[in-house]
Amino acid sequence: MSDTPLAIGIDFGGTSVKTGVLYRGNLIDEAPRIETQQFDSATPLIHKINETITDLRSQHPGIAAIGVGMPGFVDFPTGMVHNLTNVKGWQKIYLKRELNELTNLPVTVENDANCMAYAEWKRGAGRGLQHLVAITLGTGVGGGLVVDGRMVRGANFVAGELGQSSIDYQGPAGAYGNHGSLEDYVGNQQITDLAYAAYTKAGQTKQRSECEPAQLATLANQGDTIALAIWDQIAQKLSTSLMNCCWLLNPQAIIIGGGVAKAGPLLFTPLDKHLRAQLSPPFKENLSILPARFGNEAGIVGAATLALEEAGFNVDD
Amino acid sequence: MSDTPLAIGIDFGGTSVKTGVLYRGNLIDEAPRIETQQFDSATPLIHKINETITDLRSQHPGIAAIGVGMPGFVDFPTGMVHNLTNVKGWQKIYLKRELNELTNLPVTVENDANCMAYAEWKRGAGRGLQHLVAITLGTGVGGGLVVDGRMVRGANFVAGELGQSSIDYQGPAGAYGNHGSLEDYVGNQQITDLAYAAYTKAGQTKQRSECEPAQLATLANQGDTIALAIWDQIAQKLSTSLMNCCWLLNPQAIIIGGGVAKAGPLLFTPLDKHLRAQLSPPFKENLSILPARFGNEAGIVGAATLALEEAGFNVDD
Repeated sequence: MSDTPLAIGIDFGGTSVKTGVLYRGNLIDEAPRIETQQFDSATPLIHKINETITDLRSQHPGIAAIGVGMPGFVDFPTGMVHNLTNVKGWQKIYLKRELNELTNLPVTVENDANCMAYAEWKRGAGRGLQHLVAITLGTGVGGGLVVDGRMVRGANFVAGELGQSSIDYQGPAGAYGNHGSLEDYVGNQQITDLAYAAYTKAGQTKQRSECEPAQLATLANQGDTIALAIWDQIAQKLSTSLMNCCWLLNPQAIIIGGGVAKAGPLLFTPLDKHLRAQLSPPFKENLSILPARFGNEAGIVGAATLALEEAGFNVDD
Repeated sequence: MSDTPLAIGIDFGGTSVKTGVLYRGNLIDEAPRIETQQFDSATPLIHKINETITDLRSQHPGIAAIGVGMPGFVDFPTGMVHNLTNVKGWQKIYLKRELNELTNLPVTVENDANCMAYAEWKRGAGRGLQHLVAITLGTGVGGGLVVDGRMVRGANFVAGELGQSSIDYQGPAGAYGNHGSLEDYVGNQQITDLAYAAYTKAGQTKQRSECEPAQLATLANQGDTIALAIWDQIAQKLSTSLMNCCWLLNPQAIIIGGGVAKAGPLLFTPLDKHLRAQLSPPFKENLSILPARFGNEAGIVGAATLALEEAGFNVDD
């Protein structure tokens, strides 16, 4: 083993916790997933995560830092996670301090979408860039921003919530009372609903499961005109939030990941068209719209890389 | 005269150029305005500006830097101004270099809304803050952003264009093909149009001049229900773009200036209501919504202060 440090990345998802070992940006080992619904409160879950860490450390003695990506608002300096809807009793848990006491390693806790953005910035499609917008499209829509070579965290460390930004001031009220949030138009469920309604209206009966993003991509690739029209609508709505990011932040690149982005050109081609049609030249010249490099492993890679950097290691090699 | 340096600020407006002398954040002298429509091309106008500078320098020998705020996209490092619609023949003018050669002083050229934001950040309502959104509401809508104690300029130095961000993905196409731009809802003309239509619909005949923002504020202060409803609508639309800035950047403060902001509580009270109703706690706790300190002099103050900082002087005292 070289003296380049290894790190553990932990991706705390909606129903399970994934843990892996990162070496020079590569995921070299993964532990069995932990299903969160087995746990009645935060403490036994944290102890189970610590067991997994102990197992991985016994196999990889060079581990120097631990990074955790969390599906919620995180107070970055203290690593306090405000609350989780999917773990009972998870309210203002100082996860950084608890894991640090259990493992005696430096621990970093960050929002999961920021981890994804961090993975793409340091190890993926955005490597070497100074001005970056990253968005992940799945059940929810998350984002992360890099401005002037620094991750944007904001006054309370909760910045980058692209999914909550509005594309229609008269749209339906979302999770936080916000009208017309992007997530309420291009989340997995909303895409499925939109497609199901379009097929029903056209007199073509489909199961809802046939209208999910992956199936909708297959249909569009077979030339189905309804599916193609739905992808164009998704691209149009997505372009509005991304255009707003461009007018506000003038990034070099927009990086798009998550399950919905697997549609590839079905999404990227109309998105490119809608986005560039709504920007002035200095905002679109040299603007790249890129698919994310990382898929499901983005959270682990980002959390581990961020943890190494926070622990003082150079991750730009 | 103390050895604290003086600076000249130049505010290049839609129809005239204003020039003033700044000393410790105070405007201590102003030159007569230059009307831009007298000039057929950029060169004679730049020479006229230089004459004004020469006059001010003869009265204030301690001037150490010149700052210019421009109503258009500026390439900040070179001080190249892309184009101006209100000056014939103004295309890619290297204003920084030209004024530097004429005056032999350090010159800084920046977008006018960024100058306004800079004035509020360094000398006004946002003094001492690290995370700031500034917006100016007038004929057009401009913005400036401070993230982590730095002005956001972006990859091509054109960031901060809040007025071009969208509040409705299906809205009318704006100046750059962008649908539903904020400026097309809350610019002076659009407010007047909205009010005029509302009074006409209610069977109350008014002149268009009676529907302008200042008159509409007077009417609302007299308890006119139509005028009050219009101010609420303006606040709702404005809250959408500002909410998007909060979700993206998690600022400490939003600072609102320009003529429309003179409506005071008529705008700020419903804006506060609409904005806070659409944000999660960590985004609105400790969030301040503040009127700008500076009015018409914001451009001069910001440009001069920025010029001093760029020339290496400390402006945080």
